[in-house]
Amino acid sequence: MTRDTTESDQEFVTLAHGAGGGAMRSLLDELVVPQFTGNGAETGNDTLVGLPELDDGAVHPAGEGALVITTDSHVVSPRFFPGGDIGRLAVAGTVNDLAVMGATTPTALTCSLVIEEGVPTADVERVIESMAETARQAGVPISTGDTKVMGNGEIDGILINTAGVAYVDREQPVPDAGLEPGDSIIVSGSMGDHGIALLAEREGFDFTGALESDVAPVNDLVNVALDAGRITAMKDPTRGGLANALNEMAGKADVGIDLTEESIPVSGPIASAGEVLGIDPLSVANEGKVVMGVTPEDAEDVLAAIHTVPGGEDAAIIGQVTDDHAGRVVVDTGFGRRYLSEPEGEPLPRIC
Amino acid sequence: MTRDTTESDQEFVTLAHGAGGGAMRSLLDELVVPQFTGNGAETGNDTLVGLPELDDGAVHPAGEGALVITTDSHVVSPRFFPGGDIGRLAVAGTVNDLAVMGATTPTALTCSLVIEEGVPTADVERVIESMAETARQAGVPISTGDTKVMGNGEIDGILINTAGVAYVDREQPVPDAGLEPGDSIIVSGSMGDHGIALLAEREGFDFTGALESDVAPVNDLVNVALDAGRITAMKDPTRGGLANALNEMAGKADVGIDLTEESIPVSGPIASAGEVLGIDPLSVANEGKVVMGVTPEDAEDVLAAIHTVPGGEDAAIIGQVTDDHAGRVVVDTGFGRRYLSEPEGEPLPRIC
Ligand SMILES: Nc1ncnc2c1ncn2[C@@H]1O[C@H](COP(=O)(O)OP(=O)(O)OP(=O)(O)O)[C@@H](O)[C@H]1O
Ligand SMILES: Nc1ncnc2c1ncn2[C@@H]1O[C@H](COP(=O)(O)OP(=O)(O)OP(=O)(O)O)[C@@H](O)[C@H]1O
Ligand SMILES: [Mg+2]
Ligand SMILES: [Mg+2]
Ligand SMILES: [Mg+2]
Ligand SMILES: [Mg+2]
Ligand SMILES: [Mg+2]
Ligand SMILES: [Mg+2]
Repeated sequence: MTRDTTESDQEFVTLAHGAGGGAMRSLLDELVVPQFTGNGAETGNDTLVGLPELDDGAVHPAGEGALVITTDSHVVSPRFFPGGDIGRLAVAGTVNDLAVMGATTPTALTCSLVIEEGVPTADVERVIESMAETARQAGVPISTGDTKVMGNGEIDGILINTAGVAYVDREQPVPDAGLEPGDSIIVSGSMGDHGIALLAEREGFDFTGALESDVAPVNDLVNVALDAGRITAMKDPTRGGLANALNEMAGKADVGIDLTEESIPVSGPIASAGEVLGIDPLSVANEGKVVMGVTPEDAEDVLAAIHTVPGGEDAAIIGQVTDDHAGRVVVDTGFGRRYLSEPEGEPLPRIC
Repeated sequence: MTRDTTESDQEFVTLAHGAGGGAMRSLLDELVVPQFTGNGAETGNDTLVGLPELDDGAVHPAGEGALVITTDSHVVSPRFFPGGDIGRLAVAGTVNDLAVMGATTPTALTCSLVIEEGVPTADVERVIESMAETARQAGVPISTGDTKVMGNGEIDGILINTAGVAYVDREQPVPDAGLEPGDSIIVSGSMGDHGIALLAEREGFDFTGALESDVAPVNDLVNVALDAGRITAMKDPTRGGLANALNEMAGKADVGIDLTEESIPVSGPIASAGEVLGIDPLSVANEGKVVMGVTPEDAEDVLAAIHTVPGGEDAAIIGQVTDDHAGRVVVDTGFGRRYLSEPEGEPLPRIC
């Protein structure tokens, strides 16, 4: 689409509106949240975690318990990438949003496919198989869905939406906003793998040392962590990475976060590739990781428990919550302190 | 995409795979259902209505009750059409799949937007407002979602996925497969409005008499019907219309259905437009209608109850279930009897 230069950019949707950063939040705050809440659209329902909280999912009372609900659409390109594919991403993404809400045993997932006419059936088959395998790994049934086909050129390849629902105890959900001063911040493993691997693949870079996406369900790992101690807040650091997740958590709880740079796990190959690409591994998507706040007296126990879970070997305590510099994340680099600021969003589109 | 004529068409996804008819069912039967069930993907969970049933949604036990879950992606073109828009369609579509499962009070809906870069923000705003208004009408909160933007040319306009979940009593769900010989078949109103209105609009035909989509939530109407008598089976006759829905219901219950053509409500303008377009109003999508089987002794009560609900004024008993010609639908035209066969699917793509 060509545009008059006299027209304001704000009148059209831009890639930034889908990048998970500030532009997207403005769109949500100005357009979506006011329409979907407060004027009767949110009816009667004494929602436990609602849209205005902008958490990883919503929580509604149901019978004696509660329902945790979440959804993501996946448009990643290419559809097969080092370490995974769009099908694995679609299942893990939704399982993980439920998990970081504290719902580690999903009741079911939905699977909605939108496919471009002319896509090889074998590709669809491979993607479906990958979804099935990832669902088995996460222990969740996929029990309903939808299939649409759009004409050639009307959609690029395959789009998958998954929604997930879990029936849980009312006390079970863990919000984004619960950080308390003194809490330890734990990440479940190395940062930046998915985003950097995808960017490198797309740029056609040939790095020594395999760069692979970390895409995986984390519900098992989160379950073990929940059993080991008191988790006050939790997110999956997807679009915008760790920087985005921690800034959000700090802002919502009105606390500060102090990190020690050398304690943040980043693999050697990812760090090198990030330097070559000019991309900070802390500001790109992870698709198989968790970041959580843990009550200080439980932090070592939770860390030890995570270390026992496959995929949790590199978990680390990376910092503490403070009542200084509320809403901001500060990194001690060893040479000084700098803000880890909120990224504008993912540097490239179609990363997830 | 250009293809070698030597390549078999079956190796590529075609528009028919998304049309709601036989090609789509083959894809589901051969590729999706076997992968998602039976090899461990469906874990432990004693599902009440599972994927193999291919009903309007799935039902899982949850606490003392059950969860009804459904999803649809909407890609309708144009995004604003006579009688509605893609936002109204996305909310009504999912509310209606829950309703025909017997779940007339949804717990919540999700809203996942995928937008093409360059779409006017005002269009997104109008669509969101329409979703909010339709949600208010249906009495359902929209409490979580996702927003992705794809590059110009990577998706045509706006795509909306909605998923819906309802917590219900275990006895509440109404399956597709429950028809019993003797049951009356009731439709809640005129057939073919959505499909014919969309086709006419897209062809640029100027018909006298307004052709409008019927898109609307039917959960209220279904609720009133459920209170008035015993409903044995229910569907929303969307892609493939009444013909598709009834053939599916007859096949699943292994019964026959006898219809009287003159009792099937089709509005004058829709009938005329259908003739000009060469399209049978019984074989195109409705987006605000229900078709149900009702125990014969309750049929008049249910019909009378539906007549009292706005949108139910034209409801009619259109036929009976029989143990003859199992799996097939026969129409008495007044001059003779013919099969109402299962359509290949919607005649045009992007109708919903
Ligand atoms: N179109 C939308 N309608 C309603 N809520 C939305 C919509 N888009 C996003 N949200 C809400 O905004 C918040 C942020 O969404 P976001 O997609 O960034 O979360 P996420 O799924 O945890 O991250 P990611 O998509 O990167 O995995 C969530 O609470 C989500 O429910
Ligand atoms: N990609 C998929 N994955 C899993 N199940 C699917 C998928 N596509 C369709 N299904 C299942 O196949 C059945 C038929 O789907 P369909 O979309 O035709 O139902 P519907 O939503 O009632 O109709 P419509 O989409 O026309 O409104 C449903 O049980 C649905 O859950
Ligand atoms: Mg998340
Ligand atoms: Mg997510
Ligand atoms: Mg569907
Ligand atoms: Mg349906
Ligand atoms: Mg449907
Ligand atoms: Mg999301």
